[in-house]
Amino acid sequence: MAIVEPTAPGRPAGLPDTMRAAVFRGHEQIRLEEVPVPACGPTDAIVKVTLTTICGTDVHIWREEYPVAPGRVIGHEPVGVIAALGSAVTGYAVGERVLVGAITPCGTCFYCQNHVEAQCSGHTGDWEMIGGWRLGNSIDGVQAEYFRVPYAQANLAKIPDDLSDEQCVLLADIASTGISAAETADVQIGQSVAVFAQGPIGLCATAGAHLKGASLIIGVDTLEGRLRLSREMGADEVVDFRNEDPVAAIKRLTEGRGVDVAIEALGKQETFQWALESTRPGGIVSSLGVYGGKLEIPVEPFVYGIGDKKVLTTLCPGGKERMRKLMELVRHGRVDLGKLVTHSYALADIEEAYELFGNQRDGVVKVAIRP
Amino acid sequence: MAIVEPTAPGRPAGLPDTMRAAVFRGHEQIRLEEVPVPACGPTDAIVKVTLTTICGTDVHIWREEYPVAPGRVIGHEPVGVIAALGSAVTGYAVGERVLVGAITPCGTCFYCQNHVEAQCSGHTGDWEMIGGWRLGNSIDGVQAEYFRVPYAQANLAKIPDDLSDEQCVLLADIASTGISAAETADVQIGQSVAVFAQGPIGLCATAGAHLKGASLIIGVDTLEGRLRLSREMGADEVVDFRNEDPVAAIKRLTEGRGVDVAIEALGKQETFQWALESTRPGGIVSSLGVYGGKLEIPVEPFVYGIGDKKVLTTLCPGGKERMRKLMELVRHGRVDLGKLVTHSYALADIEEAYELFGNQRDGVVKVAIRP
Amino acid sequence: MAIVEPTAPGRPAGLPDTMRAAVFRGHEQIRLEEVPVPACGPTDAIVKVTLTTICGTDVHIWREEYPVAPGRVIGHEPVGVIAALGSAVTGYAVGERVLVGAITPCGTCFYCQNHVEAQCSGHTGDWEMIGGWRLGNSIDGVQAEYFRVPYAQANLAKIPDDLSDEQCVLLADIASTGISAAETADVQIGQSVAVFAQGPIGLCATAGAHLKGASLIIGVDTLEGRLRLSREMGADEVVDFRNEDPVAAIKRLTEGRGVDVAIEALGKQETFQWALESTRPGGIVSSLGVYGGKLEIPVEPFVYGIGDKKVLTTLCPGGKERMRKLMELVRHGRVDLGKLVTHSYALADIEEAYELFGNQRDGVVKVAIRP
Amino acid sequence: MAIVEPTAPGRPAGLPDTMRAAVFRGHEQIRLEEVPVPACGPTDAIVKVTLTTICGTDVHIWREEYPVAPGRVIGHEPVGVIAALGSAVTGYAVGERVLVGAITPCGTCFYCQNHVEAQCSGHTGDWEMIGGWRLGNSIDGVQAEYFRVPYAQANLAKIPDDLSDEQCVLLADIASTGISAAETADVQIGQSVAVFAQGPIGLCATAGAHLKGASLIIGVDTLEGRLRLSREMGADEVVDFRNEDPVAAIKRLTEGRGVDVAIEALGKQETFQWALESTRPGGIVSSLGVYGGKLEIPVEPFVYGIGDKKVLTTLCPGGKERMRKLMELVRHGRVDLGKLVTHSYALADIEEAYELFGNQRDGVVKVAIRP
Repeated sequence: MAIVEPTAPGRPAGLPDTMRAAVFRGHEQIRLEEVPVPACGPTDAIVKVTLTTICGTDVHIWREEYPVAPGRVIGHEPVGVIAALGSAVTGYAVGERVLVGAITPCGTCFYCQNHVEAQCSGHTGDWEMIGGWRLGNSIDGVQAEYFRVPYAQANLAKIPDDLSDEQCVLLADIASTGISAAETADVQIGQSVAVFAQGPIGLCATAGAHLKGASLIIGVDTLEGRLRLSREMGADEVVDFRNEDPVAAIKRLTEGRGVDVAIEALGKQETFQWALESTRPGGIVSSLGVYGGKLEIPVEPFVYGIGDKKVLTTLCPGGKERMRKLMELVRHGRVDLGKLVTHSYALADIEEAYELFGNQRDGVVKVAIRP
Repeated sequence: MAIVEPTAPGRPAGLPDTMRAAVFRGHEQIRLEEVPVPACGPTDAIVKVTLTTICGTDVHIWREEYPVAPGRVIGHEPVGVIAALGSAVTGYAVGERVLVGAITPCGTCFYCQNHVEAQCSGHTGDWEMIGGWRLGNSIDGVQAEYFRVPYAQANLAKIPDDLSDEQCVLLADIASTGISAAETADVQIGQSVAVFAQGPIGLCATAGAHLKGASLIIGVDTLEGRLRLSREMGADEVVDFRNEDPVAAIKRLTEGRGVDVAIEALGKQETFQWALESTRPGGIVSSLGVYGGKLEIPVEPFVYGIGDKKVLTTLCPGGKERMRKLMELVRHGRVDLGKLVTHSYALADIEEAYELFGNQRDGVVKVAIRP
Repeated sequence: MAIVEPTAPGRPAGLPDTMRAAVFRGHEQIRLEEVPVPACGPTDAIVKVTLTTICGTDVHIWREEYPVAPGRVIGHEPVGVIAALGSAVTGYAVGERVLVGAITPCGTCFYCQNHVEAQCSGHTGDWEMIGGWRLGNSIDGVQAEYFRVPYAQANLAKIPDDLSDEQCVLLADIASTGISAAETADVQIGQSVAVFAQGPIGLCATAGAHLKGASLIIGVDTLEGRLRLSREMGADEVVDFRNEDPVAAIKRLTEGRGVDVAIEALGKQETFQWALESTRPGGIVSSLGVYGGKLEIPVEPFVYGIGDKKVLTTLCPGGKERMRKLMELVRHGRVDLGKLVTHSYALADIEEAYELFGNQRDGVVKVAIRP
Repeated sequence: MAIVEPTAPGRPAGLPDTMRAAVFRGHEQIRLEEVPVPACGPTDAIVKVTLTTICGTDVHIWREEYPVAPGRVIGHEPVGVIAALGSAVTGYAVGERVLVGAITPCGTCFYCQNHVEAQCSGHTGDWEMIGGWRLGNSIDGVQAEYFRVPYAQANLAKIPDDLSDEQCVLLADIASTGISAAETADVQIGQSVAVFAQGPIGLCATAGAHLKGASLIIGVDTLEGRLRLSREMGADEVVDFRNEDPVAAIKRLTEGRGVDVAIEALGKQETFQWALESTRPGGIVSSLGVYGGKLEIPVEPFVYGIGDKKVLTTLCPGGKERMRKLMELVRHGRVDLGKLVTHSYALADIEEAYELFGNQRDGVVKVAIRP
């Protein structure tokens, strides 16, 4: 991908010249370095980070499973304070607390105007895929003291005073992504939903199915802690796939039919196949996983293409209004993501945090990173 | 309306010839009488009633505000046991516990095949409005020891063993109707919803908005007991319209914009107007009320027709699959309607129950009637 | 599949005892035999066939690529005259001309009430896939002098006097199936659509994309006659995949992005893959093909699962109201399928017709069969 | 309304200081005056107008039926050439031909991110209704030699070389508005649609119903020329409401049921009422009209609120992607609006054009205005 963002000519008064940031330097090397504070173009904002986290996607970058240019500052889940505003940005003030989504749509391109903001091609109109994911991917990210918000007018979501940073930080990506699975599938009140894998995204998908009014939610995983969290996030039943064939278990729980909607939240052939096998004729597989290698559709549970089944995929929805809606859910007690943050680190110790999170040690679910 | 239902030639063996039933006899006269047990045609079933209730619509009939033929057995919210099955009905057995919705669609007419089952015109294909509401309206109803289920194959919903009659009886109408308001409006996760009037239907509409994932739900009424129930059913805020202008209160709670969706659950000009005034541009009024007399759209909150606003109406969804989904919600603890049943009567005392419920005495919300 | 249909006890007066019918007898053996005229149960009708055709699916049966019990009468696209009516069927008269869809939903089961009629499990409620396809599959079909219509109340579509049999016969399956691809994808006014394969189904899919208001329709095939028909059915551009890489051609015609919707109308790995590669991020593959063997999703055009792409499948929509709507399209000149019927045979010569159609001789598109 | 747009500080080199423009000066006074050429802010563009037209809404302004500040340059349907670009606008060049919609959404506010772009509140976030209509309303318009395009990145739609100005000018408003009626109603293939009033908007609504695949379209008006154009734009039947009760005529054409969708394209009580009376239970009234005074819902055809009917309103959809899609329709011959332009004037003669168009003389449908 070769997305050229609008140039960012000036550095606002009052900001330091350099800052500390987590920089990708090759296989399993994300290093804390001193780098320039980003400049602020007319449609940008600079945000001072107060809280961020590490995402499974960052681990894919760390392991070189997802390609990012060496030298890139990593991270895409930021809460912070506005430090500078571009000349064309209005309605905001320096010092305001903001949440910025992992996806930063421009609001004006083909994709944004067709309501697929995550695939945003930006003001320059390059036709690229997953173009809306800029932070820590096509531009520098947020595991840093400061970061640049592209298309700031569309992406700065003010945080209400009654919400803490901790309550908001997981909304930027995993909550927005996880919840979207049930939204894309348009889960109806009273439907049954199975969620395959109960990592951070899958747990949020479980919460999303509950928010949409599913009557029966089945969480599938094998780690005891995750199955416990699955119930806390809204699962009525949990299946440990090492103890029981999950497809058989799901059919047993649904009068033999299979669920109306199966959510894939891992990105493996096995879970994709289970998801397809677990859905009834006319059912939906709503997929959040990132698939490397090969992906095969087994034709029998696909009913040879004539079972009225659907396979839907979603990348994280972004934009300030999405963030506002998610914050409203937290404010009114509809979801509580606090329990997912199991560890906390200073930005200075982020290399250690990658070591822990990347290797899934100590029952980690999500880590908080504080600059 | 002149809907001619399929003839019902035979009376099954084992049933008595007559039964007690609540019969409409004119203004504020619903009398318990001895009438014939209904006959069972090939596509019918006969159900022995174990529990029913009185609906606000029955009160409209009682007051002659809604026209029903004198002599008609009233009532449309039944739980019971199958007593007889028509020759063309399969997959059921005498003795099974069933819930039957207030609306009994045929499943085959223009309206059913266009998925507006509540407007069902039946096998005979008469083009009529609200044709799907047969029980206690165009055919005899369920405030009786037995009733006939038309189009039984589409309308007998088996009750799981772990659900009591009490947990199911309100699903037939008020839960199905109330919840449908948010469904018809397609409330999205994180949206704001105001519900005007917190009677039985409005309370279920509040529950429906919660089930659909609204982040902010505002219940509007003036009776203290109903405002308390409103919070229990899912409202985050309640507004007593005698203390405060409800439109101003709603705008205050929504950054001045108004709600995304306003639900009208009463059927008055005033509440309809409030609902319209409370919605933001592009917002939706989802109406459940039955409007007599005149209904005016005030053009200013309607933005003179160019505010991208919508006014949607819904009659109670029916059919056995709707009932199954609603029972699944109850089974998995998503809604609890038990608290709405405030009084209980024997069928023998139904005249007294009408007196209490029709005049809204003693803080009544819903009454249980047991034959 | 073991779908047990309601029993069919009686044979109406006035019908012969036996009739001629095309019976499947094993590999490439469909023979004209003398068989009993079907009996008529209470919810059935018997229709005297006046016109039918052979479908690609019948050829799969003929070749034993799709399993059907030997002895089964084949065929599922009938126009005819009502010869007898079950006791529970109302609103029809013997002698009326009717069209019956290939899919005959019951209107009352889980699938019908969830609006996936093609997966209908019938009154007996067996949970099976593609249960709505009964004629010439799970019960005897229509390449015969008479056939039984199950769930007749839901499936007898009266033919208006101003429509000929010839204008209606292709609506039963290929038009209903082909048009559904654009409907399932919910093609929007002004979108671009590519249709892979321009056989009978693909040609109807092209017509469907046109009916939905697509601005640019691209037909892909290699046979000159089919590319010509593709233009006649609504394609703006046609691509001969032997002359040109179809994916490159489609990207060239869509500013490099790919189409909004790609329709797969063949059922091969290659066309499925082209369809996926031809769609833009956020685009839809709407699939009608029947896939045997393996089906692989190439991960790159699938954007590794995060391209907001969708893969949707549809089996032919059925029911009398679907048929009525399709007849209305023909009546008002919206589609003209007459040009697709290239050959005509008497039922007596149906073995010859299979030989021609099964081997795609003489530029055949569709054949008419007249009992 | 008090929308404050981003300031527009600089005037680009090469543009004249003043220009001629049609300025609203009070009741029936729109005068050609010499006014300053607008300045170009960072997110703006200046377009040199090559073709525009007069809208019915302009006539409402002219008559003081719709309030606009005296001194405002009028007009909102422009085709032209880019004369200057703001510093934050990328991907365009001076000299390119562009179409700009009547509605110019910002792409980033609450309304835009909730996909109700016509109600856009702009970068400054004022919560106002119909905020997306800026040109010739809240800022100066396009009946001038030059105009300023706010939020240019979201609103400059490049015109393909094979389209003339004449083919595009009506897309900015009446085509976008008219077609949207069937889109908002989500007209399905094979449905029936009645369109009340066959003025420019109603004629485009007729075209829109055709584009969506309606099988039966009924145009209602009384002027012979308009009824003829109605047929040319896609109506199958036309009803002269002076010759025949339009509701009775529509019921006669739809087996007594009424249409699935009725489009109101005038803004009068009488047509609104006809529209409601003409729809079947469960049907939709899709309204484009601007209603002054009182608007009453007659309760009987509204089925007292329980007929599952919907009343939907739409303001003109805007944005460059909407314009691109509409241009694609014209390019591929799906709609031909040329026949609607009956008269042509130089900008110098615009006062005369208002006289003719405002009084509906000489069979005028639309007038072309050339600076």
